[in-house]
Amino acid sequence: MIVDKLFAQVAEKGHVCLGLDTDYSYLPKFFADRFKNAGEAIYNFNKEIIDATYDVAACYKVQIAYYEALGIEGLRAYSDTLKYIKKKGLLSIADIKRGDIAKTAEMYATGHFTGDFEADFVTLNAYMGINDSLEPFLKYVKENNKGIFALVRTSNKGARDFQYIKDENQVPLYEAVAEKIEKLAEENMGSCGFSSIGAVVGATNNEEGADLRKTLKSAFLLIPGYGAQGGKAEDIAVYLTKGNGAVVNSSRGILLAYKKEENGEKNFSLCARNEALRMRDDIRAHI
Amino acid sequence: MIVDKLFAQVAEKGHVCLGLDTDYSYLPKFFADRFKNAGEAIYNFNKEIIDATYDVAACYKVQIAYYEALGIEGLRAYSDTLKYIKKKGLLSIADIKRGDIAKTAEMYATGHFTGDFEADFVTLNAYMGINDSLEPFLKYVKENNKGIFALVRTSNKGARDFQYIKDENQVPLYEAVAEKIEKLAEENMGSCGFSSIGAVVGATNNEEGADLRKTLKSAFLLIPGYGAQGGKAEDIAVYLTKGNGAVVNSSRGILLAYKKEENGEKNFSLCARNEALRMRDDIRAHI
Repeated sequence: MIVDKLFAQVAEKGHVCLGLDTDYSYLPKFFADRFKNAGEAIYNFNKEIIDATYDVAACYKVQIAYYEALGIEGLRAYSDTLKYIKKKGLLSIADIKRGDIAKTAEMYATGHFTGDFEADFVTLNAYMGINDSLEPFLKYVKENNKGIFALVRTSNKGARDFQYIKDENQVPLYEAVAEKIEKLAEENMGSCGFSSIGAVVGATNNEEGADLRKTLKSAFLLIPGYGAQGGKAEDIAVYLTKGNGAVVNSSRGILLAYKKEENGEKNFSLCARNEALRMRDDIRAHI
Repeated sequence: MIVDKLFAQVAEKGHVCLGLDTDYSYLPKFFADRFKNAGEAIYNFNKEIIDATYDVAACYKVQIAYYEALGIEGLRAYSDTLKYIKKKGLLSIADIKRGDIAKTAEMYATGHFTGDFEADFVTLNAYMGINDSLEPFLKYVKENNKGIFALVRTSNKGARDFQYIKDENQVPLYEAVAEKIEKLAEENMGSCGFSSIGAVVGATNNEEGADLRKTLKSAFLLIPGYGAQGGKAEDIAVYLTKGNGAVVNSSRGILLAYKKEENGEKNFSLCARNEALRMRDDIRAHI
């Protein structure tokens, strides 16, 4: 199961999930100017970042929105980035947050688990219904060594709009989602003690974290919100089980680390590596 | 405002929103064989369908999942289809159901309201928070003559998993979403009496329909679920205000109408036209 590889990567390299949310404006100008269009420049930037961090990042999360923004050219860079991650023997999470039903969900599963956009994991939104939204992806989890992370509770302020609505029994919606995800997770366990069915859980609320981990005891967690979004290493510890079972995403904090260094531009990939190392050690220090 | 154009199209042509959820397997073999790859075949099939139905369809909804399934080649067909709809002076709805926050949502807005994938309307999922998920799109609604349809209540069985969860005051989640969407809708009214902020509302429950329309009194509605998914014309009437304010989607029912006719293959676009006409008249007869 793919989760066993993710578990091993975390054990070896730490908890950093490096987010390749690569906006063209993030690229140092001297570097961007080498390429004939934005898509090619972004792909080559990603390549440099991957080459400089593959031994300190457990996996790479590619946020497809940044590539869709550039149209066909951007999606070619997206595809090339996923292929490069695969070629290097590393793990990719396609952050697509797709959520649809029936045949449409099947089409998304085909699109993101095979062909040009093949990734190891995808993020999904189950608002339209757990079975309808997730089922077409489960076949790939069982038969093709793939994994999913379902949105459970996000770390933005607006998450309160709906995710925190409580039912008659005072159970918030995110908890209802978590319970259904955990059930699916238990049906798709790896040998490492976690499941290839994971959950996206924001890092910004320590108190609820322990409760949520109790519900989601088998799901591997993808935790966004570290750094730029305010999440701290001490908020992460509560989600870990024997030091594993979660990866923590940082994107801008790593990709733009070079902006904090004098003459950082020329060494943007080394600056990214140093920030990934700092983050890795910051998290390890709080376990 | 774009909603005024949609309103006028409905008044002139009826309520049919023609869904171009074009799977390669839907194409008659003689036709598909003319083209060098699946993407080109699908684009040309869409073109024939549009040419045969532009005077009986209020708008075209292109479901991006079917195109993502074919990778870059599929997305080129997606882009070409949207451009063809625009060139003919017709309206497009990009059925993307994207839902993300902050800068990521901005990137989706750029991606689907400009450039290769530019559409008139997009469908969105606001589970992560109304303001966070929708705000970056509102700028385009106000400044670039664009519109959105936010998911409110879907028509699948699994919708009950979360959308029907009731809070302490017995208000189901879909109603809470509807209230927030209506508020945004009222801030973005066209001169036709409806808003460029619309809602996706399933056609399969007549009783709740009237209540939901009371809440969503300004939002234009996109109603999936007609035909293949079990929705009937009599379920539509409850959502209409003076005969307007909603479009009803049918995809397979129209695209595959030719399979119900003897020797239908050669006349697939005429069969599609006849089914769109039948559907238009079916809905009009129930108003």
